[in-house]
Amino acid sequence: MAGENGEVVRNKQVIFKGYVSGFPKETDMEVRESTMKLRLPEGSNGLLVKNLYLSCDPYMRTRMAKLDFLTYVDSFRPGSPITGYGVARVLESGHPNFKKGNLLWGITGWEEYSLITAPETCFKIEHTDVPLSYYTGLLGMPGMTAYVGFFEVCSPKKGETVFISAAAGAVGQLVGQFAKLFGCYVVGSAGSREKVDLLKNKLGFNDAFNYKEEPDLDAALKRCLPEGIDIYFENVGGKMLDAVLLSMKIHGRIAACGMISQYNLQQPEGVHNLMNVVFKGIRMQGFLVFDYYHLYPKFLEKVLPQIKEGKIVYVEDTVEGLENGPAALVGLFSGRNVGKQVVVVSRE
Amino acid sequence: MAGENGEVVRNKQVIFKGYVSGFPKETDMEVRESTMKLRLPEGSNGLLVKNLYLSCDPYMRTRMAKLDFLTYVDSFRPGSPITGYGVARVLESGHPNFKKGNLLWGITGWEEYSLITAPETCFKIEHTDVPLSYYTGLLGMPGMTAYVGFFEVCSPKKGETVFISAAAGAVGQLVGQFAKLFGCYVVGSAGSREKVDLLKNKLGFNDAFNYKEEPDLDAALKRCLPEGIDIYFENVGGKMLDAVLLSMKIHGRIAACGMISQYNLQQPEGVHNLMNVVFKGIRMQGFLVFDYYHLYPKFLEKVLPQIKEGKIVYVEDTVEGLENGPAALVGLFSGRNVGKQVVVVSRE
Repeated sequence: MAGENGEVVRNKQVIFKGYVSGFPKETDMEVRESTMKLRLPEGSNGLLVKNLYLSCDPYMRTRMAKLDFLTYVDSFRPGSPITGYGVARVLESGHPNFKKGNLLWGITGWEEYSLITAPETCFKIEHTDVPLSYYTGLLGMPGMTAYVGFFEVCSPKKGETVFISAAAGAVGQLVGQFAKLFGCYVVGSAGSREKVDLLKNKLGFNDAFNYKEEPDLDAALKRCLPEGIDIYFENVGGKMLDAVLLSMKIHGRIAACGMISQYNLQQPEGVHNLMNVVFKGIRMQGFLVFDYYHLYPKFLEKVLPQIKEGKIVYVEDTVEGLENGPAALVGLFSGRNVGKQVVVVSRE
Repeated sequence: MAGENGEVVRNKQVIFKGYVSGFPKETDMEVRESTMKLRLPEGSNGLLVKNLYLSCDPYMRTRMAKLDFLTYVDSFRPGSPITGYGVARVLESGHPNFKKGNLLWGITGWEEYSLITAPETCFKIEHTDVPLSYYTGLLGMPGMTAYVGFFEVCSPKKGETVFISAAAGAVGQLVGQFAKLFGCYVVGSAGSREKVDLLKNKLGFNDAFNYKEEPDLDAALKRCLPEGIDIYFENVGGKMLDAVLLSMKIHGRIAACGMISQYNLQQPEGVHNLMNVVFKGIRMQGFLVFDYYHLYPKFLEKVLPQIKEGKIVYVEDTVEGLENGPAALVGLFSGRNVGKQVVVVSRE
């Protein structure tokens, strides 16, 4: 339950301790108790919110480093709470789009209560007949990433072959289901037998393999996709990308969504087979999901009925409590999570 | 002069001796004299042609290897003449598109006389008030590559920054001029002071550098393009691509036209900075020029007046005689040529 307006409440926070190199560790963050006065500052057009669910996303790793290249995100601020996508309840609003009691998803803090200073980047949650946590995944940024990555970036055609790496993750599991429903032949890779089983038996993939048990990724791809790959949905980078390039077909498309295998390396692996991009007329495209957020209503219109009809399912991996957030976030990089990693701050 | 119809003539040929690994050498080819009867085989719908100009193009290197990946070209056949783009005069036609005396450009053999068995892939030359050799370059495949690569693949906007590697080559020099005329800021790299001088003083580039004299490509790019790169026209691959990725701007585009620095390596160099594709929403696109050949009339309509008005110039590096063809072709890979490398077989 939210405190009374103006009340001073405990505000547990996950503090970013300092820039990280190599694999992030739980100890790169610290859970700390602070306090917060539940009142919007005078004249603020922001939102005072109570955080309910937080999203663990691989891109957050880049924000743990001091960014030395032009990009669209900032580094986390040492000494401040980390920030990321989440679901929250509005306690007080200074912005015309929101009023007290609304639910929203968008960028918030890893803490119990946050002041959101850019409410125009948040989405009001109108449909609450699905699990609210879905707005960190299926119905939030990862869902939109899967949707626009597949339908807008990959230019799919029925009957094409689709390969997805990190296929049991927050985005991959959806790309696979979208591609299957669309009429493609879908193969995924993941990092455990449990995940491969999930892909084949719950998520409807045509085939899947455990990359950790494949001594030769090129051979694994040629076994599962002997005719080659029309579309690669890239979530991991490095050796997998190098192997995939060999199997790509002429006019193939690669949605470069993520490269999780590379984020913790001091020197990213070299990719040697890019000549295939030239000789096969391949389009490899990175994309910034927020460039496509105007499509969110269209996305909801398509996906909400599919959820209700059971045509799309979603696997979440949930931890309870902010204090378990750091371990959950760090776990992404060893593939500990099975499905979308969510941190429950409060079920209200 | 062509021989009489039915006459048996000498036919000098450049024979491909066998598959090449590493840098190609002149001795991978052999100039041999054979004979040819100047008559189209009974019932053939091909063309009997006299070759005039032959084009040396970097992609031909890939045809010297036994190709072990799916692509759109075949390897050269050991023991047969190498083939490539050229300009030729029709001596006898079995195809309705062509008649005796027509000039054409398209795929022909490295020999004095050829039988073209796929005339539908050849273009009739209608405009002869420009140097005929231009149809191996500016007005042929490389010109179309520059045109569609820049206008169709790069989605340029006025005022954007464009970087071109191998900028003094057959394609690069045109991309630079197209981009300048379009209103972009254009920087090129090349492999000698002479070429850099050409870029700056004859071809109208805003700036240029000699990559062989730059110990740090990243620094060279940041010096010439401190605000970053919107469009990279990629002709070389490897280390240059890796450096460019660091300077690419958000929503940047890379036309992956060629990777000449990689064609002779047993193991292509690793490219480490592909995460930039993800984080900056970069589109990197290979393209097959013949997918765009339907635009050739539009291209001519645009470019022919620009040539006549002196708005576009074209630098050719010409050798005389088929016997000098192997050295010219091999020279591409050490950057010996300045501008488009042409082999003159006959000026008729």
